Amino acid sequence: MTDINILRRLAETIEARKSADANSSYVAKLLHGGQDKILKKIAEESAETLMASKDGNTDQVVYETADLWFHCLILLAHHGLTPDDVLRELERREGVSGIVEKASRKSD
Amino acid sequence: MTDINILRRLAETIEARKSADANSSYVAKLLHGGQDKILKKIAEESAETLMASKDGNTDQVVYETADLWFHCLILLAHHGLTPDDVLRELERREGVSGIVEKASRKSD
Amino acid sequence: MTDINILRRLAETIEARKSADANSSYVAKLLHGGQDKILKKIAEESAETLMASKDGNTDQVVYETADLWFHCLILLAHHGLTPDDVLRELERREGVSGIVEKASRKSD
Amino acid sequence: MTDINILRRLAETIEARKSADANSSYVAKLLHGGQDKILKKIAEESAETLMASKDGNTDQVVYETADLWFHCLILLAHHGLTPDDVLRELERREGVSGIVEKASRKSD
Repeated sequence: MTDINILRRLAETIEARKSADANSSYVAKLLHGGQDKILKKIAEESAETLMASKDGNTDQVVYETADLWFHCLILLAHHGLTPDDVLRELERREGVSGIVEKASRKSD
Repeated sequence: MTDINILRRLAETIEARKSADANSSYVAKLLHGGQDKILKKIAEESAETLMASKDGNTDQVVYETADLWFHCLILLAHHGLTPDDVLRELERREGVSGIVEKASRKSD
Repeated sequence: MTDINILRRLAETIEARKSADANSSYVAKLLHGGQDKILKKIAEESAETLMASKDGNTDQVVYETADLWFHCLILLAHHGLTPDDVLRELERREGVSGIVEKASRKSD
Repeated sequence: MTDINILRRLAETIEARKSADANSSYVAKLLHGGQDKILKKIAEESAETLMASKDGNTDQVVYETADLWFHCLILLAHHGLTPDDVLRELERREGVSGIVEKASRKSD
């Protein structure tokens, strides 16, 4: 079974890139490039997830979703947040009333 | 510390909704509504994450990222995939050469 | 041949909705709902254009592109802008050096 | 007053790029690159329009909307469509019952 702590390990690696030179890595470059560059990547990976899904290419869906989540981790780091903040939010919803019901209430 | 297995528990709940009546819950409705409805939600939640970030509202960034990941779980379920497939892909990249370097190679 | 002034006529209609009651029409509701609701629609229509294109459904591509442009007109109105501002920008690029070259310089 | 025919002129220029060498211009490269590259640009420009709007930078809203519409013209050309197809659709809605009412009926 996969080590689910991968999200935390990646978040730590990303965090460490904050103090690295902008040219030392892709993540350091994005973090130094500022919020808009990160957001643009999230929009891009989200669109690529859509296209992979429409292509019915499940390998590609996995690949693009991984890219999307990875860039979300970079955005979280940009805001001083961690994947645990997101997981806690998901847990909270499940805990309170079930995410299904919760989502249902907010849905149009 | 958060129970990181929340992703797996949610995926199981979503999986169980596949055989439920379309009107029984938000997730069941989305799963029965088909791929395009799920993809539209991903595009929507991705845009809301962007807006929350531009507002500098970190609580909202957490909330919208949770929504985005949650709808990715629904898309994965639609394709018969699981969060472990995505986590394994992230792990694979880390394992091979570090996601930073990997991402760097594919970057523009 | 189509009356290309349709963009201007729509912009005028949208402008008139600004002073109308929020419940009087779809556009009035969007304009009163504020920027984020308009932006969310643009993200949504953009995603629907992508999906229509991936489906190879040209009628739907036309329909969704019309929706996308229409919601852009609402965003322009929100900012006190008009379609002529956008057309002038397109013209300016063409005038200066050809949009192709211009775009090429900014391209990745 | 702006020459609104700019949309048609650009469409003609784009159409001419279809038979040009892929490396001869930005548009030729996109058209030869295939649908996904065009769609990715639309998603990107749509996200940049959102960010410009959130920044309250109206010059940038004009600039990014121009980019978005321009890449829509490329997508239309990819599908053998023209801006007149989109304008006709907008006109049709206006003609039938007013786009406001039309949109209202399809709205959630």
